[in-house]
Amino acid sequence: MTAIDLSSALSTLRASAPLVHNITNFVAMNTTANALLAVGASPAMVHAIEEVADFAPLANALVVNIGTLSPEWVEAMVRAAEAANAAGVPWILDPVAVGATPLRRDAGRRLMALKPTVVRGNASEVIALAGEVSAGKGVDSTAASDAALDAAAALARDSGAIVAVTGKIDYVTDGDRTVAIDNGDAMLTRVTATGCAVTALIGAYLGAGFSPLDAAVAGLATMGVAGEIAAAGSNGPGSFQVALFDALAALDDATLAARAHVS
Amino acid sequence: MTAIDLSSALSTLRASAPLVHNITNFVAMNTTANALLAVGASPAMVHAIEEVADFAPLANALVVNIGTLSPEWVEAMVRAAEAANAAGVPWILDPVAVGATPLRRDAGRRLMALKPTVVRGNASEVIALAGEVSAGKGVDSTAASDAALDAAAALARDSGAIVAVTGKIDYVTDGDRTVAIDNGDAMLTRVTATGCAVTALIGAYLGAGFSPLDAAVAGLATMGVAGEIAAAGSNGPGSFQVALFDALAALDDATLAARAHVS
Amino acid sequence: MTAIDLSSALSTLRASAPLVHNITNFVAMNTTANALLAVGASPAMVHAIEEVADFAPLANALVVNIGTLSPEWVEAMVRAAEAANAAGVPWILDPVAVGATPLRRDAGRRLMALKPTVVRGNASEVIALAGEVSAGKGVDSTAASDAALDAAAALARDSGAIVAVTGKIDYVTDGDRTVAIDNGDAMLTRVTATGCAVTALIGAYLGAGFSPLDAAVAGLATMGVAGEIAAAGSNGPGSFQVALFDALAALDDATLAARAHVS
Repeated sequence: MTAIDLSSALSTLRASAPLVHNITNFVAMNTTANALLAVGASPAMVHAIEEVADFAPLANALVVNIGTLSPEWVEAMVRAAEAANAAGVPWILDPVAVGATPLRRDAGRRLMALKPTVVRGNASEVIALAGEVSAGKGVDSTAASDAALDAAAALARDSGAIVAVTGKIDYVTDGDRTVAIDNGDAMLTRVTATGCAVTALIGAYLGAGFSPLDAAVAGLATMGVAGEIAAAGSNGPGSFQVALFDALAALDDATLAARAHVS
Repeated sequence: MTAIDLSSALSTLRASAPLVHNITNFVAMNTTANALLAVGASPAMVHAIEEVADFAPLANALVVNIGTLSPEWVEAMVRAAEAANAAGVPWILDPVAVGATPLRRDAGRRLMALKPTVVRGNASEVIALAGEVSAGKGVDSTAASDAALDAAAALARDSGAIVAVTGKIDYVTDGDRTVAIDNGDAMLTRVTATGCAVTALIGAYLGAGFSPLDAAVAGLATMGVAGEIAAAGSNGPGSFQVALFDALAALDDATLAARAHVS
Repeated sequence: MTAIDLSSALSTLRASAPLVHNITNFVAMNTTANALLAVGASPAMVHAIEEVADFAPLANALVVNIGTLSPEWVEAMVRAAEAANAAGVPWILDPVAVGATPLRRDAGRRLMALKPTVVRGNASEVIALAGEVSAGKGVDSTAASDAALDAAAALARDSGAIVAVTGKIDYVTDGDRTVAIDNGDAMLTRVTATGCAVTALIGAYLGAGFSPLDAAVAGLATMGVAGEIAAAGSNGPGSFQVALFDALAALDDATLAARAHVS
């Protein structure tokens, strides 16, 4: 797998201005909407079971994030994913804290069965989700980072999704080959909802017509490079978050391509 | 219609410190509360059907925003509007994306039947809402901006509400006469929930005793002038949002009156 | 009661990195999560009745805030508090606007019956809550600030909770002795959810193993000193909020101990 060409990713995204339908958590809604606006996408937050199936086909991509969950929202997520699938709308799953409770494990299993286009989680989420999907196949016997990569590859093979594991280095895999993105800054972990926001950025690239693997790499690189730029101009998590939105909006193709470390 | 006198609008609002009851969407709640605090109003977010009728009469104004909707919230909005009407509390409707789904169209129709004091939406929302209220009367045959003005006037005449249509230029109409407010900055469209926040500012002016038309003009001018000041001192949508709250809090009568373009 | 020793409070908190389970209001969720991250705690927002009892025992502390209430959330709060009690997890109640409606008064009464470790409210909330808990005992006949202190002491004695009353000067009482914390800045009242955030900071100190009284004093002092630092470097409520997160993250033991006015 050659490195992804990012030289026109952002301008393509902005020219497309995709409508991104989000069913996301209460903590991340505002941050996610502003991150999507900053890169030129059009965010919509629509969660009621009575309207998600009407709305998902109108969107260019769907983002499903289980951060603040309730059974009613799980039903709406399922219905939205089904409607997206029926309409050919790509969708991405963010399995926040999927291993923490039975409600989350069950939601993760049901949503994976609907075959998301992309899954984006941290190491423990991807390991937990892989365990739900391929119970008994064993993803638990190696070192932490290896375990996450093994789990991601198994999850991708079992589900057909592109799987992105974020951490100090981000990885994207189709189950066969793996791309590493070595960007970002530790400050991204000091502000809430940046993980949710990068999931939405991948959704925006999906909505702009990128392939699932290219969308995942482009979304992670965009947030990573913007995070580096923001960290250089901030004094703590408050000013970092402000600078992050400014950096996302100011980022251009040349800067993204020059600074992205994709291999 | 002469231009509205804004020379003491903000100081009157701040002296009144109105309690504004908001039933608004999850994306906008924090931004709305901070915008209201910045201009000297007192925000309360209360949405449960079990308490909205107890709370609405305690407030000086009610703001109803259908951004992140569910059937339960629609019932609470209806009950709150009925309680506000019974208590003589003015209220404003923000019909977010009202045309997008049946759930929203139905909510728009039911809320309009309760006769909001003011309606504030963008062009497509006002056109969609006017179509729901006066189906068949035809608001669809002219150019986009004319269509919005025609729809706003028809909606105002049919409902008795003052209708505000926001865009590059904002318009306020009672169905007969129209006031234009030519303030603001494109950055206001790059940050989520600024439209919801300006609806709440109009609610604050209503709660301070301004006439519906004066409240709409004053609210739009306040946000527009603050947006211009904020844009001049920011580097992107992140710093713009920060500067917007600072500008709303620092704005004074003389600056508002001098910079507002109302005709 | 001697003054609390704050000389290692923050470093102890950061070394502990407590997991804080929040059931809080929609306005405050993002602000609360970022305040907790800024001081080195790990926030989780989990509210569904189907999972709160699974999650609360995993956490080091539970924060219950009734800001945006519904009956379903009250049931989840009750279940979470019961699970926290059963697991020996300390918890703090923030009785937002508890006196405003029957739904809130009932929620306040039910939650107090579950014996929170700490209660944090403003004067009118503490007075209202004390009235619910000890109806007829009379907390209404003296001047406002005295009434709040009397109510706080009565509430502490009746419930066994440590009670914190915030205002220009903050007070913490066990019903017998009272500690005053004279820090903070008026700007803290111009940004929404700072009260909710300080409740969560007290929760973080509880989760790090501080005694209830020490946790309350340390949390209030941490927010108060950070607020003073932030106010000195900001131009209004927008930049103040940004500076507040920066100040919380940058605050160290020596600065906190030197600037805290605890007596």
